[in-house]
Parts: sequence; structure tokens; C-alpha cells
Amino acid sequence: MAELHDAVEVITTKRDGGALSDSQIDWVVDAYTRGAVADEQMSALAMAILLNGMSRPEISRWTAAMIASGERMDFSALSRPTADKHSTGGVGDKITLPLAPLVAACGVAVPQLSGRGLGHTGGTLDKLEAVPGWQASLSNQAMLRQLEEIGAVICAAGAGLAPADKKLYALRDVTGTVEAIPLIASSIMSKKIAEGTGALVLDVKVGSGAFMKSLERARELAETMVALGTDAGVTTVALLTDMSTPLGLTAGNALEVRESVEVLAGGGPADVVELTVALAREMLTAAGVADVDPADRLADGSAMDVWRRMIAAQGGDPDAPLPVARETLVVPAPASGVLTRLDAMAVGVAAWRLGAGRARKEDPVQAGAGVELHAKPGDTVVEGQPLLTLHTDEPDRFDRAQAALDGGVEVAPAGTSYAPASIVIDRVSA
Amino acid sequence: MAELHDAVEVITTKRDGGALSDSQIDWVVDAYTRGAVADEQMSALAMAILLNGMSRPEISRWTAAMIASGERMDFSALSRPTADKHSTGGVGDKITLPLAPLVAACGVAVPQLSGRGLGHTGGTLDKLEAVPGWQASLSNQAMLRQLEEIGAVICAAGAGLAPADKKLYALRDVTGTVEAIPLIASSIMSKKIAEGTGALVLDVKVGSGAFMKSLERARELAETMVALGTDAGVTTVALLTDMSTPLGLTAGNALEVRESVEVLAGGGPADVVELTVALAREMLTAAGVADVDPADRLADGSAMDVWRRMIAAQGGDPDAPLPVARETLVVPAPASGVLTRLDAMAVGVAAWRLGAGRARKEDPVQAGAGVELHAKPGDTVVEGQPLLTLHTDEPDRFDRAQAALDGGVEVAPAGTSYAPASIVIDRVSA
Repeated sequence: MAELHDAVEVITTKRDGGALSDSQIDWVVDAYTRGAVADEQMSALAMAILLNGMSRPEISRWTAAMIASGERMDFSALSRPTADKHSTGGVGDKITLPLAPLVAACGVAVPQLSGRGLGHTGGTLDKLEAVPGWQASLSNQAMLRQLEEIGAVICAAGAGLAPADKKLYALRDVTGTVEAIPLIASSIMSKKIAEGTGALVLDVKVGSGAFMKSLERARELAETMVALGTDAGVTTVALLTDMSTPLGLTAGNALEVRESVEVLAGGGPADVVELTVALAREMLTAAGVADVDPADRLADGSAMDVWRRMIAAQGGDPDAPLPVARETLVVPAPASGVLTRLDAMAVGVAAWRLGAGRARKEDPVQAGAGVELHAKPGDTVVEGQPLLTLHTDEPDRFDRAQAALDGGVEVAPAGTSYAPASIVIDRVSA
Repeated sequence: MAELHDAVEVITTKRDGGALSDSQIDWVVDAYTRGAVADEQMSALAMAILLNGMSRPEISRWTAAMIASGERMDFSALSRPTADKHSTGGVGDKITLPLAPLVAACGVAVPQLSGRGLGHTGGTLDKLEAVPGWQASLSNQAMLRQLEEIGAVICAAGAGLAPADKKLYALRDVTGTVEAIPLIASSIMSKKIAEGTGALVLDVKVGSGAFMKSLERARELAETMVALGTDAGVTTVALLTDMSTPLGLTAGNALEVRESVEVLAGGGPADVVELTVALAREMLTAAGVADVDPADRLADGSAMDVWRRMIAAQGGDPDAPLPVARETLVVPAPASGVLTRLDAMAVGVAAWRLGAGRARKEDPVQAGAGVELHAKPGDTVVEGQPLLTLHTDEPDRFDRAQAALDGGVEVAPAGTSYAPASIVIDRVSA
């Protein structure tokens, strides 16, 4: 079959600052997926997109072409509306774990297709796999049944969803083209739109532990994704949230499951509760359910009930003890005063080095490894008191984990006034 | 062996507008040559170089790294100085054919490693292969002997010279990254410096039939290459020359050999003679030979003597009739008046479609095919008189060749004043 376009023509259009036509975009995404455009051609195009940008219509079309590369799920037969949440990734970001059952307890189905962690940010599936027996893989049919019966599913995305994105993401990772906002936005949104959710709330993280270090770039990404969702008919809202320090008091797989269960039991760290409830409210509003207060569903135990059924439905035992690391090491506060900085990236890298994360996607993770925080920025600390506890099965990892914390902790003299950042910084809607 | 750098680090340095360090450049060129940096990584880097540029020290180092990827020739044992010429390619550019023997006849050895044509520009080796028996391949030893005994060699470059360039050039061709001036300049200069010439004259073409369409870009390329040669200790000069209309009266392999022999016999079109002599003077000066006028060596037949010996030394018969195409078609002047445009690109594409050129490097070419011009811009023509003669072995090629000429010919009313462009537009030296 004769090709409609050729790769060099598409690349040079973008290289020279032009806008790609719908036909060029449809062709290049399809041709790349079927192998008619080579990796070296797509990486040159990705670099040209990174440096010269794409307009909103180009990004919308690019996203649509990625969706068209695979199957598309359909939840329209469900008896209740659907809403999903996506976080751009942070340290200690276990929010999906309490959030999905909480929103389901409020009457909205949550089809949460999740991924594994890479580098310093954890992955939702890695966390849930710390629960004995729990399985990440579900057939589409089992997923639909669980959504109908329980209202919440957290599972691995099937290979059939946006295969173009899967191939392109792996390429971007090795070619220095991950940071292109049009490609980040279309990667996330193609999977979320193909997944078939009716409403979507984006948690775009900003700060040292986030992919977006500046508010300006985070806002650009949020606005781009909200526009893409809106163009595709999905009610989409984004919250810009703080990731200068870890969320809650834990970073690590089983540690974060434990903290999530505390939140579902009506306790847990204030910041985790605040963000969980804020995101739940956005999801309910976006799904058209306005008369339920999610805070009540945490308090009355109904969110916990959904959690237990959701875990059990995927083979997990909600009552089984969680894995615990074999070794711990306490890191003391370096001085007395006010803790003004506990850097998210430093803690994230420490948790990763302790075994909670992976460097390559085929590496295993330790369920019990991670970092436990005993204070948060704004708290008063006394020199020598426990500030962090490091957890790992392999004590020879402590040295490199401690090295990651160097420069990540700051204590100011007692009496220094310090206002912790708000968790929710801003909101972006269509 | 642990790697000194990694590809993503090198790519992101250039992507973010930074300068590559010597160590990064040495590593990435070497790692690409041995396969440790993948094609998709090098193409992303090439696009970042194209869009963000390289400084003169970066380009110098890049060129040195490409030279270091292969063997380096050495002509220092020769009894006379060496000078080489490189043209960036044009339509009807047969200048190497009379130039190499002419400069040799003036006492300077010319080691001319040449290539084949691709697209609308012809290749020197394709032209010489129209001479019955002539062989392009020579061992390094045979080349040295011929340089010592006859003074001129035109032959194919061996695979050992700048293999990094060979691999990178093929990649750039399919990834829309050919047009990066730092990469064009380092590609040309790495081969010429590795070839070991003592002096180098660059013929940088400007205009519709040239790779560089604007004088500004051509000048930037010329200045970059002169700087690279100078940095490497090779006396380097560039002429910027016109390529808005074909050089001479022929475009096509055997047709151009015939015209070259006319020049060596003391005749030939004025523009070909002018440019041949201008380049010869530059080569002689750059090689430190100031007391010979090349025009005399054309007039006295000594350049023709070298030509005959040079052809014979490589198996060719200088007295054998040249191949002639089986079919011809005359294209008449479309109106009476002054010919104001006979576009180089239009004629180049027509010659290519007639069979003189190739679309892929493994395609054969027709020795006899091409375009013969019966008038040049500035000449007065009468409607219906022969303007061009098209030559090919396959008459079904005439239609597409004529289509290529559409819009390429303009005739203004008689009496219109028209000043043809100078052949030599400018000169760039260190």
C-alpha cells in the first residue's frame, strides 16, 4: 500500500516550526505503531516537538490518533456514573488507595487503571501488591463486573490500550524527549480517554519531588490536559498540588498501604486526608453527584467497607498483616528548632535506594522498604529525636539512602515563623 | 567497560541549549560508531543540534571525533604539495573533471576522493564511469603511486575514512536532520581532513539548484568549514558560486565528460572555464605555488595530457567514443526574447528523471542520459528554436522530465536588459 506521507516530510514540517496537519498526525502515529516509521525517525520528531511545541488542535489530534491505535473501553452500561483520577506522580502519593473506595462509597464508579513506579516515585500497583494475595491483572469483563458490584477497581492497564503510547513512551525515555509537555499530556490523556471514564480529575504535582518543578510548567501541563479531556468530551478538572515534601508520613509500598488504611479508618495524616477529600469532591462534582460529602463516608466506615471488598475481589486479604522490612535505622534530627525543609526528592530517592522503587522496569521491589517520617515541615524538633526511620531488607542499602538525604533536611532556630505550603495550590477547569 | 557518559545526558545538554563538553563529544561519536548509542538517540541529538546549534569549538571537536573514528591518510611522502577541492553539489557541476588534471599540470598533486550522485545533483564518479573501462576503486597504495607519477587521482573514498560520518549521514538522511550546518560542515570536513590533503578549496554553491538556497546560509556553511579546516591545520578557502542555472551546457554523465574534454582542449563554455580556472588559482595559492597561471596550462595542452594519463591509469580509454543515449527530444523556446531564467533545479530534476541520476544509492544510472542546453540566461532566443535537448535510453521518461521543466524557463520581451549573475559571488578565507 502506498503511504500517504513520509516520515522526513512530517519531521521537517515540525522542525521548521510548522503545524502538523490532521492527516500527517494520523499517518505518523499509525505508521509508527505498525513499524513503518522507524524509532530514529520518531525520536527526531519528538525532539522537534519538544523544542518547537504543538498547538492545541495538534495535541488533540495527536491524542486522538494514539487512542485510535488501540482498543477503547466502554462503561456506558454501568448503572452509575464513572470518574477517574490521575496523578503526575510524587513521593508518598498513596492517594489512589483511599480515594477509589471513598468515591465508590459515594455512588460513583472508579475504574482506576494504574502503573508501576520507576525512579523515585512509587507506583500504585507496587503498593497494592504489598497486600498478601492481591492481583493487579484483571480481564476487561472482571473489571466491569467489579465496577458494577463494588464500584471501585484498581488494576493494571491492558496492553490493548493506546499501544502507540506504550511504544512512544519507551522511546522518549531513552532519547531525552520525556519533558515535552505536548507528549506528556497526550500520553496521559490518551490512556485515560481510551479507558472510557466519564469524568477525570488530574492531580498535577509541583515541587522538588514532582516531575514538574515549577508552577508555570505544571500549570501549562494542567491546562493542556484539561483542554484535551474537554475536546474528547470527558469532564476534566485539574488540581495543582504541593510536592515539595512527601505526602503524609510514609514513602514505600507496605508503609503507604498501612497509612491509607488509617485514613479509611477515619485517622491518618492531615495532608493525606485533606487531599483525598478534595480530590473526591472534584470527582463527584465532575460526575454530576453533588449531594454527598465524602468526609462523611470516611467517618461512617463505608469507604473502608468498599476497600475491604475491593481488595478481596482481587484475591487480597484485607486482614493479613502487611510485610515489614527486616532492618530499620533511625535518622535523628540534626538540630533543635523548627523543621523548615524535608525535601520530597531526597526522601523519594532514599526510599528508592532502600528497595521501595526500581531503576529498570523489570526490577523487583521490596514490599516493606521505605522511609517513615516522624515530623513534617513546620513541626518543632529537638536535636537527636527520631526524624526519619529507614526500612529495608538489605542493611547495606542504608549508606546510599542516607547519602540521598544530604541537604534535604533543614532546621531553623526555635521561634522561626514558618507557614507550611497549602496542599492544593490551584484549580484548573475548562 | 563502564561508559563515561550516557546518551540521555548528552542529548538533554544540547536540548536545553548547553554546550557539549569535549568529553561528551568524544564519547558520543565513538559510542555511536561502535553501537553503544542507538540510532534513535543519535537522531534526537542531531535534531537538538539542528535546532539549538553548536559553537565553533564544539564543531571542531565533533569533526576531530569523526576523523578519529577511522583511518587517516598521509601524503607527506609525496614530492609535491597537495590540494583538494570539494563542491557542495550542483547541476552540471563537472568542474572536478578538468580541474584535477589542470592543477596537477601546474605542479600540485590532487587526491580527489569523490562520491556518487543522489537526487538532482550528479556525482563525479558516475560521470567518469561513462568513460569506457574507467574504474573508481583504487587501493591506497595505487592512489599514492598515481599521485606521485601523474599528479591527479579521482577515485572512490574507502570505507575506512570517517566511518562515523558514513553512519551518521545515512541516519540524517531519513530523520530530517540533513540541513544542520554544524553536521554538514563536520561531515564534509572530517572526510577531507582524514584524506590528508595539505590545502583545500571549497566550492559552496548558492541558488535553486544548490543545497543552500540562500546566500546567508551558504556563507555560514563556508565560514564554518573554513574555520574547521584552519583549526585542523589545513589551509582552507571557500568560493561562494552561483547555482541558479546549470554550469555549462550539459547535465548528465557522458554529456558532462564531453564538455570537460572540450575545456581541457582549450574550448568549452565560458562559465565552466571561468570557474575551473578560478578554483585552480585558489588551489595553487593555498598549496603555496604562486608562479604558474592555470589558464596557460589549458592553452598549451598539458592539462589534457594529465587527463589522458589519469584516465588510462584507472583502466579508462580516453580515445573511446562516449556512450550516447538512444533517444532525444528537443524542447523549443516558448517565446521570442531574452532568456531570463533556466532554472538549475528544474534542469537537474529533468536530467535525473531522464536516467542520469538515482533516487536510491543502489540504483544504476544511464551513462548517456541528461539535458543539453542550447542557450543560457541572457541569450536572445526565437520562439520554436531548440532550447534544450533531452537524452535518454527510455523514451517513456520524456513526459516526467518535461513536467520537471514546467515553470523553470522564462523568456522576457526582446530588449529587456538582463545581467547574468557572476559565477564567483564571494570568497571566504580564514
